[in-house]
Amino acid sequence: MSTKKKTKVLSKKKGKILVPKWKLFRAKEPVLSVFMWGINHTVDQLLHVPPPGLLMPDDFKAYSKVKIDNHNFNKDIMPSHYKVKEYCPNVFRNLREQFGVDNFEYLRSLTSYEPEPDLLDGSAKDSTPRFFISYDKKFVIKSMDSEAVAELHSVLRNYHQYVVEKQGKTLLPQYLGLYRLTIEGSETYLIVMRNVFGRKYGVHTKFDLKGSTVSRAASDKEKAKDLPTLKDNDFLEQNWKLNLPPEAGKLLIEMLTSDTEWLTRMHLMDYSLLVGIHDCERAAQEAANRPVEQNSEESGDELAPTPPDSPIPSTGGAFPGVSGGPDLDDEFYAIASPADFEKNLIYFIGLVDILTYYGIKKRSATAAKTVKYGSDAENISTVKPEQYAKRLVEFVSRALN
Amino acid sequence: MSTKKKTKVLSKKKGKILVPKWKLFRAKEPVLSVFMWGINHTVDQLLHVPPPGLLMPDDFKAYSKVKIDNHNFNKDIMPSHYKVKEYCPNVFRNLREQFGVDNFEYLRSLTSYEPEPDLLDGSAKDSTPRFFISYDKKFVIKSMDSEAVAELHSVLRNYHQYVVEKQGKTLLPQYLGLYRLTIEGSETYLIVMRNVFGRKYGVHTKFDLKGSTVSRAASDKEKAKDLPTLKDNDFLEQNWKLNLPPEAGKLLIEMLTSDTEWLTRMHLMDYSLLVGIHDCERAAQEAANRPVEQNSEESGDELAPTPPDSPIPSTGGAFPGVSGGPDLDDEFYAIASPADFEKNLIYFIGLVDILTYYGIKKRSATAAKTVKYGSDAENISTVKPEQYAKRLVEFVSRALN
Repeated sequence: MSTKKKTKVLSKKKGKILVPKWKLFRAKEPVLSVFMWGINHTVDQLLHVPPPGLLMPDDFKAYSKVKIDNHNFNKDIMPSHYKVKEYCPNVFRNLREQFGVDNFEYLRSLTSYEPEPDLLDGSAKDSTPRFFISYDKKFVIKSMDSEAVAELHSVLRNYHQYVVEKQGKTLLPQYLGLYRLTIEGSETYLIVMRNVFGRKYGVHTKFDLKGSTVSRAASDKEKAKDLPTLKDNDFLEQNWKLNLPPEAGKLLIEMLTSDTEWLTRMHLMDYSLLVGIHDCERAAQEAANRPVEQNSEESGDELAPTPPDSPIPSTGGAFPGVSGGPDLDDEFYAIASPADFEKNLIYFIGLVDILTYYGIKKRSATAAKTVKYGSDAENISTVKPEQYAKRLVEFVSRALN
Repeated sequence: MSTKKKTKVLSKKKGKILVPKWKLFRAKEPVLSVFMWGINHTVDQLLHVPPPGLLMPDDFKAYSKVKIDNHNFNKDIMPSHYKVKEYCPNVFRNLREQFGVDNFEYLRSLTSYEPEPDLLDGSAKDSTPRFFISYDKKFVIKSMDSEAVAELHSVLRNYHQYVVEKQGKTLLPQYLGLYRLTIEGSETYLIVMRNVFGRKYGVHTKFDLKGSTVSRAASDKEKAKDLPTLKDNDFLEQNWKLNLPPEAGKLLIEMLTSDTEWLTRMHLMDYSLLVGIHDCERAAQEAANRPVEQNSEESGDELAPTPPDSPIPSTGGAFPGVSGGPDLDDEFYAIASPADFEKNLIYFIGLVDILTYYGIKKRSATAAKTVKYGSDAENISTVKPEQYAKRLVEFVSRALN
């Protein structure tokens, strides 16, 4: 699993010990090797390009392409021919800064060890879109189709402006880097985002909420999984609530309102509010029952070397912490249940899948659903962006009591 | 002149001071920018490729190509489209190791500051071949034509074997890296070698010796230069000698004999023995006469940051030092005159321009010279490799008394 090899070489001269460190991008599949290589290359390139004082319109149309052709060299670990294209390098560098993601942290999380395919949702290995999660669970990597890439480009200036305005405090996906990898003629678009779910706290219950109750229940097959993705109707039927401290609940609605207003302005809809719930008592019980030698997964962070001269800044969170509550440092999307609540829960709440433009494609979907469900169209997922946003905010407001 | 910019940024979070360092490959001409970029890229790549335990035949046919296409990105400093091809990366990495050149030292010397065109010989800026010298004078960078590149490839395995056999103690050029740069369709081959001349000790007199006395005198125009390249006849007419300690003189002849035997086996000839002479008394007088603010050129080394955790190993030298003599650490080709000699001189002696194959081209040159000089062909530069080698060793032996 480790992709690092440290070799101690005793230098013959002057008895000095040299410690070359071979950082290999060895991964289970070429797309991950090239991804790790690409992150390393693009982050390194930025060390040689001072950030512009102000992002200019051209920065949002920029790209940097690198093409590698090796012959009889490094063929054990990497493909011999591959390309990496980074989109808008200065824009995403600035977004990382806005979101408090240090470039070294980004590099370390994505390249120290191979990202793992996120098969929690039981999707097949070759399904699309594909998800990967960084070894330290900080970042998710998702494949995109070219339409989504085009959509992201078309909203990027507005997105950047909005993120700056909000000083990074938004529930929108944190887009941190956009890449196209080409291996043997096959192209893969990958976007890196901050993981909504906890790094230290595993999620026990998971909801994908759209605010609609039409066709919004997990299938029996889904429910049979270890961690099913439940939906709006499951949330209501199982009498779930978001038990948040009043201050955090107010902030959640404010952010959600503002974020969905922005999404509406961009004509984006069909997004979901992803909600993960960590149950502290259940986690403690699980930890107690777990054999000692297998509980290293929660301390995966310690596997990576942290050079003493490279402090990783804490990124803080969107919500204020509860004094005396769990340590939510570096858990951006986390909210702990109030101290006086019957359970100790940690909620992870963020918006996902925002890049569906309400255009020709969606209009035909609306028409189809109206035919199918008649006048109940108001409650269908693909209503117009404004209604869509309003409905989701109302759903979440009700969930708060 | 400095290509580094350090910016102190006061982080708002937690009052930490982050010091991003922009290492720019800004240079007076694109070929140098791309060269510096290429060194940085190729040395970095090797951090991700463990060296093979043993070099295999394929390693001598290997290459690694990288192609960059930027759009609206980094266009102030670098060309937007360029390619770098490194030849036989594992072979040259091993050669650097054989010659005691640490990869970090190599990177630092060639990329911390722009290499300077070496115009000491008064050649025009666009002459071929072009010479550059690293800011710290450790390495020279020379342009090559594709024939010389092919010749180097054809002798590389033998060269590597010979260097290993001699444990790096040879007067042959130390080939440390071979690159092809392509900028706007124009290709430049560059070879990096250790500088024969001193880093700390400027050369006052310079000879290019071939052991021949036919047409081997510097022109009046050449002699009018600050540091003319004198030749065999100038050496004899001005009654120069190589006043070396007996031990060093013996070693010089041994190395020269062995090296020229290898060159003969490779059918290489027309090479020169480059001899530079530093006069310590003259240097002291020059330093005394020099205005204080201009004498920083000899301490250029201190301009570069030396991370405390990256010790640069000393590379030692080909010749034993004289106890009580000048500090010749890291001056591979240096020999100090003996303590009892009337002057304090430091000689820098190495073989250069070895890549001329005695083939069809040279045979016709021999024929032409034989016609011109009649039976005196024995003394002409382009005699057969064996005679060529023998003649040079004899010339140097006589110069030693």
